[in-house]
Amino acid sequence: MVLNDPGFEEEDPNFLSRSERYDQAVRKSAQMVLKMREYGIADPEELYCYKSCVHPGRPEPFDLHLGMFLPTLLNQATSEQMDRFFMPAWNLEIIGTYAQTEMGHGTHIRGLETTATYDPVTQEFIINSPTVSSIKWWPGGLGKTSNHAIVLAQLYTQGTCHGLHAFIVPIRDLDTHKPLPGIVVGDIGPKFGFNEVDNGFLKLDHVRIPRENMLMKYAKVDPDGTYIKPPSAKLTYGTMVFIRSLIVGESARALAKSTTIAIRYSAVRHQSEIRPGEPEPQILDYQTQQYKLFPVLAMAYAFTFVGQYMNQMYYRITGDINQGDFSELPELHALSAGLKAFTTWAANSAIEVCRMSCGGHGYSRSSALPDIYVEFTPSCTYEGENTVMMLQTARYLIKSYRQARAGQRLHGIVSYLNEEGRQRIQPQLVAARSTGVDINDLSSLVEIYKLRAATLVELAAKSIQKELQHKKSQEDAWNNSAIDLVRASDAHCHYVVVKLFAEKLGKIDAAPIHSVLLTLARLYALHGISINSGDFLQAGLLNGSQIPQITNCIKELLSELRPNAVALVDAFDIHDRMLNSVLGRYDGNVYEHMFEWARRSPLNSTEVHESFHKYLKPLRSKL
Amino acid sequence: MVLNDPGFEEEDPNFLSRSERYDQAVRKSAQMVLKMREYGIADPEELYCYKSCVHPGRPEPFDLHLGMFLPTLLNQATSEQMDRFFMPAWNLEIIGTYAQTEMGHGTHIRGLETTATYDPVTQEFIINSPTVSSIKWWPGGLGKTSNHAIVLAQLYTQGTCHGLHAFIVPIRDLDTHKPLPGIVVGDIGPKFGFNEVDNGFLKLDHVRIPRENMLMKYAKVDPDGTYIKPPSAKLTYGTMVFIRSLIVGESARALAKSTTIAIRYSAVRHQSEIRPGEPEPQILDYQTQQYKLFPVLAMAYAFTFVGQYMNQMYYRITGDINQGDFSELPELHALSAGLKAFTTWAANSAIEVCRMSCGGHGYSRSSALPDIYVEFTPSCTYEGENTVMMLQTARYLIKSYRQARAGQRLHGIVSYLNEEGRQRIQPQLVAARSTGVDINDLSSLVEIYKLRAATLVELAAKSIQKELQHKKSQEDAWNNSAIDLVRASDAHCHYVVVKLFAEKLGKIDAAPIHSVLLTLARLYALHGISINSGDFLQAGLLNGSQIPQITNCIKELLSELRPNAVALVDAFDIHDRMLNSVLGRYDGNVYEHMFEWARRSPLNSTEVHESFHKYLKPLRSKL
Repeated sequence: MVLNDPGFEEEDPNFLSRSERYDQAVRKSAQMVLKMREYGIADPEELYCYKSCVHPGRPEPFDLHLGMFLPTLLNQATSEQMDRFFMPAWNLEIIGTYAQTEMGHGTHIRGLETTATYDPVTQEFIINSPTVSSIKWWPGGLGKTSNHAIVLAQLYTQGTCHGLHAFIVPIRDLDTHKPLPGIVVGDIGPKFGFNEVDNGFLKLDHVRIPRENMLMKYAKVDPDGTYIKPPSAKLTYGTMVFIRSLIVGESARALAKSTTIAIRYSAVRHQSEIRPGEPEPQILDYQTQQYKLFPVLAMAYAFTFVGQYMNQMYYRITGDINQGDFSELPELHALSAGLKAFTTWAANSAIEVCRMSCGGHGYSRSSALPDIYVEFTPSCTYEGENTVMMLQTARYLIKSYRQARAGQRLHGIVSYLNEEGRQRIQPQLVAARSTGVDINDLSSLVEIYKLRAATLVELAAKSIQKELQHKKSQEDAWNNSAIDLVRASDAHCHYVVVKLFAEKLGKIDAAPIHSVLLTLARLYALHGISINSGDFLQAGLLNGSQIPQITNCIKELLSELRPNAVALVDAFDIHDRMLNSVLGRYDGNVYEHMFEWARRSPLNSTEVHESFHKYLKPLRSKL
Repeated sequence: MVLNDPGFEEEDPNFLSRSERYDQAVRKSAQMVLKMREYGIADPEELYCYKSCVHPGRPEPFDLHLGMFLPTLLNQATSEQMDRFFMPAWNLEIIGTYAQTEMGHGTHIRGLETTATYDPVTQEFIINSPTVSSIKWWPGGLGKTSNHAIVLAQLYTQGTCHGLHAFIVPIRDLDTHKPLPGIVVGDIGPKFGFNEVDNGFLKLDHVRIPRENMLMKYAKVDPDGTYIKPPSAKLTYGTMVFIRSLIVGESARALAKSTTIAIRYSAVRHQSEIRPGEPEPQILDYQTQQYKLFPVLAMAYAFTFVGQYMNQMYYRITGDINQGDFSELPELHALSAGLKAFTTWAANSAIEVCRMSCGGHGYSRSSALPDIYVEFTPSCTYEGENTVMMLQTARYLIKSYRQARAGQRLHGIVSYLNEEGRQRIQPQLVAARSTGVDINDLSSLVEIYKLRAATLVELAAKSIQKELQHKKSQEDAWNNSAIDLVRASDAHCHYVVVKLFAEKLGKIDAAPIHSVLLTLARLYALHGISINSGDFLQAGLLNGSQIPQITNCIKELLSELRPNAVALVDAFDIHDRMLNSVLGRYDGNVYEHMFEWARRSPLNSTEVHESFHKYLKPLRSKL
């Protein structure tokens, strides 16, 4: 529907200025909203899919209106507020954004400085940015597109601060779109990617809004200024799990695109020689190229399955929550934080491996790889900065470890921290003994990933213990063990990914598919062991002589995958128009289309650039 | 001189379109040439320094004219050719580029397809692009700026191909700047960085140039078509060493800039809490932040010293060559290939570590970090693709290893491959024994880096041996061992860097400087061991219980460096105007300048973007 719609035709954004890119994105988004109404697309997953086709791989100016403003109204607005705001917002009379992050504070939201002070005389809130660092910064669509913002601010009433609450603040005139009095709003300037989005700033100078503009479904402020607390809101856990499961899915998709481009191109590109006198081989025949790309291909599949698992998990939890059962939430919340960080970091590096595996042409915007990178990399920072996420997961792991030590019996994914699991690890004997691990057996590999995680959690816990024995406070002990804690979380997540990949194989009946996915799973697991071999050796889970065996096994897996590699990326089934890469074209006709693309570059619109007449020709006479 | 010259004032390129960026760069380059004449700047190092100030951190359209076209004339033109071309080129009547890379071939230059066929009847060469993949692609300044190109082409005369030779080809009319007949030339389109440069394409359709336009200082073609071979040209080795030593220096400079920005900003940014109730700490007080940035800081210093060493080495070799002594060339050529790859890969990742350590603001172009990355990352590919470079170094290492096995005595940096060195390594005993390494002693660390390199070279050699025993050809054995070969080169280079850092310390007398550099050197060495601990454990150079000791030692070094960290980046002495980063400002006044910068963003030049009137307002009536 999207590909055949002339209303969505576009110029390659790489040929446009920032303002033209924004302009084109708004045009397409306006068309998109019309079409979604026409086709009756309202289901969130359908909407997400349709939007992904309209703006393939690119965030757009309406993202926060559709993805944050409307859902926040649905979740937190009273019925009176729904009446006032929802339909106008649905009909784009009101275009909104979600203004949380400030120049001075991101992930640590308790530190936000914007204030909302209740004035019982006029029954208004006074929204104010008291400092430069309190200026709202980054919200998508805030700069030029939105006329409303849901502003997160510290609520003050009757002289007391009650922490962060959400307020609906009109920021531009509905008719003229000009900023309202007291509002300084604009675009935060060019970024690494996100060129279509007007990420904005918002400075509020004692802006008054009616009491009824505080989102009051849960917390409330009475007309006299009396504050009424919200019931405890564990529901937000579920939303975070959902968003983070989407990000894990995005990691998988970014890898699917990158490997599709790099592996197809590596089958098209012929270069140099392996055997003298023979024709130049496809660069995919070089072991070094396979070693760059096939582990990333395996990772793309692994993260796809993890994303699916988390999505299903989210729906299961939502069911549990509706039944009043919150028991699994803490573990899953911790897991989703860690997996968000683990998958985005890994994908972030892997995209660049794919790009650089394409040689010079990977630097051309026509390859699409630079765009994939710059649109993806922010996921390492937004929705919870990755290091902070890893430390959140670590907090859960350490708590679980201590519970196990105190004799509690752990369930679920951290059950490996139970006493009997730990007894199997004896780091002190480590290096000497020969291990019973069968490197050809996937379940055996899952097992040593588990034991590695257990070892590193224990090391982190002991580091904290040691610090405490040196009379450090809990907080300093924590900070002084942070390196170990991040490492423990990383190992935990790595174990979960390998485990989920292995479990997925159990659900696949078709023998040929099972076979090739098993090859990928083994490669994923062995490659991870290889690049983290120190952990496994140190913990005595492998001995030194097994490392060269693992290297040999990896080489065999690379050879096994070689004939299937192109089919394995074709299976991601990414349409050429969605991929938008001359290197990754399905038909392999790379060079002609690269030439054609280049000729359309704006710098070629004139034969002679005006700078020749302005600067170069006059220069001659001056020399 | 540059900073005070109003002729070099500029708009932030991030606020300009591609065409405007190119235009601004040409304007500044024209001014630069005038000023260099005025001030009499001709010494290559002075010129490089002046140019770096005019275009800080950004390649520019004249780079190949100044850095390749003129030097190639100097090195390879006959005196008749010098008369015809040099002064016009010096005076910018002729603006040239160096057209080697083609769409289909980069590092593997023997595969280039462009032909130069001699026609004795007219005494001309016919330069031709026989295929789409033979179109010249990437040369800087080729797209719009140059009117001449030195074209590398396969020389055919009297029915025989004599391989690659260089030809001076006029491509645009000197007066009108229009492309000449038979020439299709233009810009290759937008890239990941290099926005100021018109990297170009050049398609030659049987373009005739006079015989005298072949660069004939060495090889020659007589009027009748007789080909005269060049004397063997080992001199090009020296040039490659020089260029690669420059790239190592660029790695160091990119890291110096990145760490200056990230460390200063981490001292300005306050966030979250370590101890409840206390003010928000500087994020540089978090162990995880130190663990991200201080190893990169240590790397910046390490690579600075390696760059200096290579530069001195180049001048020493040049002296040797002039004396007719080529004995050290092969080793140094191999070393420079590996170090180019080692330092650019490491810096490439480290720049992104610095960027992401700045949280959201690292994504803003105002941080300068995105620009540092995109301008730097091509160095992993140009002047020899990194994996190919690593394999070149490996070839030398394997050859040396075999010589040692055959009883030859090796000298220089590979002397560790001599028999008596190898006897000290007994991988099979590895894991069991406790090693005598003192992790607090830098020379002891240098020693185990050396032994690690020796082990990995041996492993790679054995892998080849094993393949040969399985009846593989030499070439297949090599390809099937490529993973091990790259790993061996990497370990060799890592050893050299640690060794050079340690040697540098021996030349520093001032105790306080020696002390802080020793801390950096130890951190560099221990961090490298920590992330490659598998190699050291596998080789029995460390035992399992030493790994946690190393982690503890790293933590202590991070704490030691904390009070000196800002001073250590200040010591790089990068002027604010050269750094051009709101996050990295010397005065630390980050937030106000970020706001000021954002307000200048072109999207803020109007209060209401035209897209509102074009798309958003009309949309309301349609819904």
